[in-house]
Amino acid sequence: MPISEQLRALEKIAGRSLCTVSDLSGEEVDAVFHAARLIASGTVPLADELRGRVVLTAFFEPSTRTRLSFESAAARLGAGVISIADVSSTAIGKGESISDFGRMLDSYADVIVVRHAQAGVIDEIRAHGLGKPLMNAGNGWGEHPTQALCDWLVLEDWMRREDAARPAAMRLGIIGIPRRMRSIRSFLLLGCARFRDLIRDMTFVSSEPDCLDRELAAALAEAGIPIAFERDLDRVVGEFDAVYINSLALRDGHYVAENAEYRLDGGTPLKREAVILHPLARGAELSSDLDNTRHNLYFKQAEWAVPVRQALLLAVCGQIDALAEAYSASSRR
Amino acid sequence: MPISEQLRALEKIAGRSLCTVSDLSGEEVDAVFHAARLIASGTVPLADELRGRVVLTAFFEPSTRTRLSFESAAARLGAGVISIADVSSTAIGKGESISDFGRMLDSYADVIVVRHAQAGVIDEIRAHGLGKPLMNAGNGWGEHPTQALCDWLVLEDWMRREDAARPAAMRLGIIGIPRRMRSIRSFLLLGCARFRDLIRDMTFVSSEPDCLDRELAAALAEAGIPIAFERDLDRVVGEFDAVYINSLALRDGHYVAENAEYRLDGGTPLKREAVILHPLARGAELSSDLDNTRHNLYFKQAEWAVPVRQALLLAVCGQIDALAEAYSASSRR
Amino acid sequence: MPISEQLRALEKIAGRSLCTVSDLSGEEVDAVFHAARLIASGTVPLADELRGRVVLTAFFEPSTRTRLSFESAAARLGAGVISIADVSSTAIGKGESISDFGRMLDSYADVIVVRHAQAGVIDEIRAHGLGKPLMNAGNGWGEHPTQALCDWLVLEDWMRREDAARPAAMRLGIIGIPRRMRSIRSFLLLGCARFRDLIRDMTFVSSEPDCLDRELAAALAEAGIPIAFERDLDRVVGEFDAVYINSLALRDGHYVAENAEYRLDGGTPLKREAVILHPLARGAELSSDLDNTRHNLYFKQAEWAVPVRQALLLAVCGQIDALAEAYSASSRR
Repeated sequence: MPISEQLRALEKIAGRSLCTVSDLSGEEVDAVFHAARLIASGTVPLADELRGRVVLTAFFEPSTRTRLSFESAAARLGAGVISIADVSSTAIGKGESISDFGRMLDSYADVIVVRHAQAGVIDEIRAHGLGKPLMNAGNGWGEHPTQALCDWLVLEDWMRREDAARPAAMRLGIIGIPRRMRSIRSFLLLGCARFRDLIRDMTFVSSEPDCLDRELAAALAEAGIPIAFERDLDRVVGEFDAVYINSLALRDGHYVAENAEYRLDGGTPLKREAVILHPLARGAELSSDLDNTRHNLYFKQAEWAVPVRQALLLAVCGQIDALAEAYSASSRR
Repeated sequence: MPISEQLRALEKIAGRSLCTVSDLSGEEVDAVFHAARLIASGTVPLADELRGRVVLTAFFEPSTRTRLSFESAAARLGAGVISIADVSSTAIGKGESISDFGRMLDSYADVIVVRHAQAGVIDEIRAHGLGKPLMNAGNGWGEHPTQALCDWLVLEDWMRREDAARPAAMRLGIIGIPRRMRSIRSFLLLGCARFRDLIRDMTFVSSEPDCLDRELAAALAEAGIPIAFERDLDRVVGEFDAVYINSLALRDGHYVAENAEYRLDGGTPLKREAVILHPLARGAELSSDLDNTRHNLYFKQAEWAVPVRQALLLAVCGQIDALAEAYSASSRR
Repeated sequence: MPISEQLRALEKIAGRSLCTVSDLSGEEVDAVFHAARLIASGTVPLADELRGRVVLTAFFEPSTRTRLSFESAAARLGAGVISIADVSSTAIGKGESISDFGRMLDSYADVIVVRHAQAGVIDEIRAHGLGKPLMNAGNGWGEHPTQALCDWLVLEDWMRREDAARPAAMRLGIIGIPRRMRSIRSFLLLGCARFRDLIRDMTFVSSEPDCLDRELAAALAEAGIPIAFERDLDRVVGEFDAVYINSLALRDGHYVAENAEYRLDGGTPLKREAVILHPLARGAELSSDLDNTRHNLYFKQAEWAVPVRQALLLAVCGQIDALAEAYSASSRR
């Protein structure tokens, strides 16, 4: 995609919300990735693009990684950060309407980042806000779109590395219960919508036979991705080029570790070049034995947490002048 | 008031505390309103007037709206914000003296914003601090002066709107227990001191016969405002030009919703042009039926939360150069 | 020490961690003190030296003074501050490994400030981080190096004051249980390593006979400081030039007030010129009777909390240009 189109795609993101991965077109995803890569490379001299702006993080569920990566991204761009950490003590914790709450957020901040245990609350806030961009930082069993952007940026980098012994299209293994975990849901939906060409097929490894729901099954079918289900990890793990593992599942409003029989460690018979994705923090399902191996792609996912969110914040706030300059400088080289 | 006097009034606020509405003279209130209006209009290019300064928010009682509006105002001006959210875990929660605590706040911050459930603590901190400006963000049944400034700014705007069918002086209804709720107390005291000319009379609607205390009764008497008491809302609500409603009351250290028999909704026989004020967050006493009606002035109150506090922070920190320039620019037009 | 050496010493601190007082050489301590004094004097025009940088405060134990003084120092230099206040809700509170946690902190921040109830966690995070500077804000019974820097800066100032009737070397009284309290430990270790010439001897006043541990005893022996032990404060208090008092002790993971029989107040038979140090917040062991006397050096300790940490943050981030200019300006005078 030529630079002028990249910039046009970024410009179109200004003022918009990111509640689901489908809120961004394929071109917009590409443009965000390009911007994140430039930012991470250090060639964009950023410091106060968001000076005078306020980013509000409202976490109705506690979170460390997601909250801090949004706050770090905002702070690196010079934005002020204000934060609702203990939502139980707020009026909404005591029965204030979502409508009043959304209106309040809008009048205090320029960008609003929300995590909530109930999938529907994000859309309710969006419907009742006055129009400030809303970023979904995880909504129940719904989505976690910024995580999926980090995941696919890393996978795309890996697939396109020229020196890598990697296939033209991946055989992808998914360990977990996609319909019960937002990070896998967003990963799958973004994969179907934008990265179809990188995927040969998918195998879902789960102790729960019914691990997809209608939305996910429909997206996979529409994308024409061949899928299979398997209970026995050992039987199939050696076929995967990439494995996404996550043992958390949301049941009755609680996050529980499930699928305890599935565990990746130094003894797992992975394909020699296979890579592992995990949306940290991890539990017992992913051994630190694998940290210093070529399989480890999960630390890379974490490294992109801040630059991807910096790119999104710049785009959403319509502050892409520094990126435009860096683009034209890099095109002159 | 000519611009040179406005600026002189703002200058005089530098370094001072705002613990009660009586800490500001009438001229100073006018100057703060003028500054807030300019800021809200977007004609003052603000971003880093408070760069390098630190605003500390110490909330001994949880609060979302008031805390975030102070923090947003500080952040929009480039100040750093540091915060004590969970006071129970602090040394003062464990018995440190107010004197030591006040001294500590003074050495860490340039402006100190305090909320506390006991009315007297604000004055104690003020007495023991080294002299940094202190902002009262609500002290028990005491006062909530920054809220009252938002309330009266909105009421004044409404009264002075040229196209409005509004009276020369309002008949004001107050629903709630003023002696038990700081926001109404500050509203009344500021009304008596500065906006007497906008008020024709006041009626207090409450299930508690003795809803004023000596301070409030004296202020109303001194201002010469005719007052009446009434239990039956329906009998009088049709006479009011403006109604201030709030069901919260502080009893034995707890905020409780009272006066449950009083409720404003789409069926309330309000005067056609009457407006409603409410210092959100609201409960059942104010129906969302009224949100999209001409009676709704409470959303406007909320919209002023940040600009009024920006004006105060600039004045208290003595950073009014940007305002001075905007004043002279607007006077040339 | 000439200015060029001061600056060289500060430069050498860039990128390094401060986990124990032994992480700084004597020259580096001097250079930090000199920088802190310049900053406190107001002659260094600081505001945005750390613009675009992020300081992360991770407090696994609650703290008000130490956390706020780090955050205030960072904010005054224009850094963004992000914060983990309630660690119980984080993944590490739920079993995430220190290694993963350290790696996460590194990818979100430029400087990491950690307090933890277990002495060993700081070193674990340091071992597993990718290399961002780590500041120890108190680790169990381990150390509290930034507090010790404030303590000795104040003591050195007092000892070198020309108008003071003070001895060439102090007789120092230590009331408390050094092996159970990190602030005294760091104070003693820094005294032995760097301020030996200011100390004539030390007397430990404690109800616990065995109040030192091997590390402290070895450091005192190596420095050749004569030491004595005493249970009866009244018998010795009149001999001290300086008294460091602290009643807190860490026992079985809890901070408890001990040594309740030792208390300094207006009736204590102190030497006329003696000074008292206390790493606030204080309890009953130090009466406010003494606040307005010449004995009070503890308020001065508190006043240095922010400038000492500003100097450290500038040095650790390698941002000493403003200091260099102020040095050369002051040398021209």
